[in-house]
Parts: sequence; structure tokens; C-alpha cells
Amino acid sequence: MGWFTPDIKTMNDLFVHQLRDIYYAENQITKALPQMIAKASDQQLKAGFEKHLQETKGQIDRLEQVFKLHGVEVGGVACPAIDGIIAEADEIAGEVTDKAVLDAALIAAAQAVEHYEISRYGTLVAWARHLGRDDCAALLAKTLDEEKATDQKLTAMAEGRVNRRAA
Amino acid sequence: MGWFTPDIKTMNDLFVHQLRDIYYAENQITKALPQMIAKASDQQLKAGFEKHLQETKGQIDRLEQVFKLHGVEVGGVACPAIDGIIAEADEIAGEVTDKAVLDAALIAAAQAVEHYEISRYGTLVAWARHLGRDDCAALLAKTLDEEKATDQKLTAMAEGRVNRRAA
Repeated sequence: MGWFTPDIKTMNDLFVHQLRDIYYAENQITKALPQMIAKASDQQLKAGFEKHLQETKGQIDRLEQVFKLHGVEVGGVACPAIDGIIAEADEIAGEVTDKAVLDAALIAAAQAVEHYEISRYGTLVAWARHLGRDDCAALLAKTLDEEKATDQKLTAMAEGRVNRRAA
Repeated sequence: MGWFTPDIKTMNDLFVHQLRDIYYAENQITKALPQMIAKASDQQLKAGFEKHLQETKGQIDRLEQVFKLHGVEVGGVACPAIDGIIAEADEIAGEVTDKAVLDAALIAAAQAVEHYEISRYGTLVAWARHLGRDDCAALLAKTLDEEKATDQKLTAMAEGRVNRRAA
């Protein structure tokens, strides 16, 4: 992906910057998920991460549609937030040896990622609407709904089995 | 605050590590909020950040109660996630010159912080319950509710006035 230096004067500039931030973040998430799949022991969790990897690829395609609709070049900007969230996930996953405890830690790490995305897509939907881009808002809202659903599924998995096995 | 090297073997170790992660994060947030207060132009937003700074100090006190109830020393561990989220907030706030656009960017940054906290406190409440620490869970759930309420207030401020003035 291309890289951009931000130059933010208007709400439109801020919107495009934030799109590029989440575009970078989604790409980093596709790199992090295979490691989480490899580390997960619970088969339902492993399958959930695999499904979310495919979903994330679809979300990247959707962001590329938004860039095109809005008439700006597809690209990312550095996003220290997702880098920090993923670094913390790697760190903690490296410290835990018990498989059941590791599954609980992986779910917590994935939920931190989901909540970052929920906050960013929530903002992007609102900004797109204020800029009169209901077409972009509708695409971004689809991803927002997917992220919320993923977060809920992770909670259900944790509460249903993973935390009980770990505790 | 003291600093700890993680040694995570059990669910209890993971719980204590996560407590220390959010304890560090809350302390970093109290350092970041005065800058956000200084940068905000909208008076309601400025007052909201000021109120949240006081609330955050109360949340730190509550975490110290949880450490004591659980019989572990009060302290933090490095939390690259909150460092990244705050670094990104600083970066974007430094790039935006228009005051109304900056207010919109500050709300988005604050909501990324809130969502990080919502994910972490949500996890901590669940883990405390699985460890049989309903006393700790009750305290952590109070903070979780406050973070959710703050996130909703920020959305209302953005939707009610800030985004419209910026767009």
C-alpha cells in the first residue's frame, strides 16, 4: 500500500486520514491473526480467528471501495495505536505457557483489537454522514456491525468455556 | 508506582497482569488529559474532559482497592497499547490547525481511549468472577459503566454539535 504524510486542514482531510489509519490497521491485523490462529488451542476459538481473518480481508476490500467512491488514492498512514495493541498481544502471548490461560489471553487481546476498530469505524460512519457521503457511511457501517458481532462472539466464547477452563 | 516483570502461569497471574496493565494505562491517561483539555475549544468538550480527569483519578483509587482486596502489591506494567493510542492522539492533534476540526479529532482520540478501557475492564470483570472475586468484579464493573457512559457522552457531543461545526 502507498504511504501518505498527513496534511489536515478540513474535516474531509481528517476523514481521509482516519480512513488511511484504519486501512493500515486492518492490514496489520491480517498479519497478526495467523499467529493468533497458530497459538489458539480451543478449536472453536481457532475457527473463529480463521473466520475473522477472511472477514478482515473483506473489510479491506470495502475500505478500498470507500477510497474509490470518495475519489482518493488507496493507502495507509502509520497507526501507532494498532501497533501498540498488537505489540502488547504478542508480549502477553509470549509470557503465558498454560494453553487454557493462553486462550483466555488471546481472546482479551482480540477484544482490544475489536474495540479499537469499533471506535474508529463508529467515528468514520459519523464523519462520512456529516460530509454528505452516505454511500461511504453505509459501507463503513457494515464493517462496524461485523466488528461488534465479532466482539460479542468473543465474549460468548470466553464466558461459555474458555475462562472456565482457564480458571 | 512500582514496576513488575510478568510471570504468567495461571489465570490469577493473568488477572493481576491485566490489572497492572490498566493501572499503568489510567495513570498515562491522567497525564494525557490536561493536554486534551488545553487543546479543546468547545467549552462543553473542555468541561467533559475536565470531569473525566477527576473520574479517572477515582478509577485509579478503585484499582488500588482491587489490588488490596486481592492481596497483591499496587503497581503497573508497561502497556504498549495505551502508549500507542496516546501517541496517535498527540500526532493527530499536532497536525490539525482548524479549531473545530481539532475538537472532532480530540473526541475521536478520546473514544479510542475509552474503547481500550471498555475492552480491558470488560475482560477484568469476567476474569474476577471466574476467580471467585465478586468483590473485585463489583468495583471493576463500576468503572466499566463509567467508561461506557463517557463514550456515549462523547458520541452525543460529536453528533450534537462538534461534527456539524467542523464539517
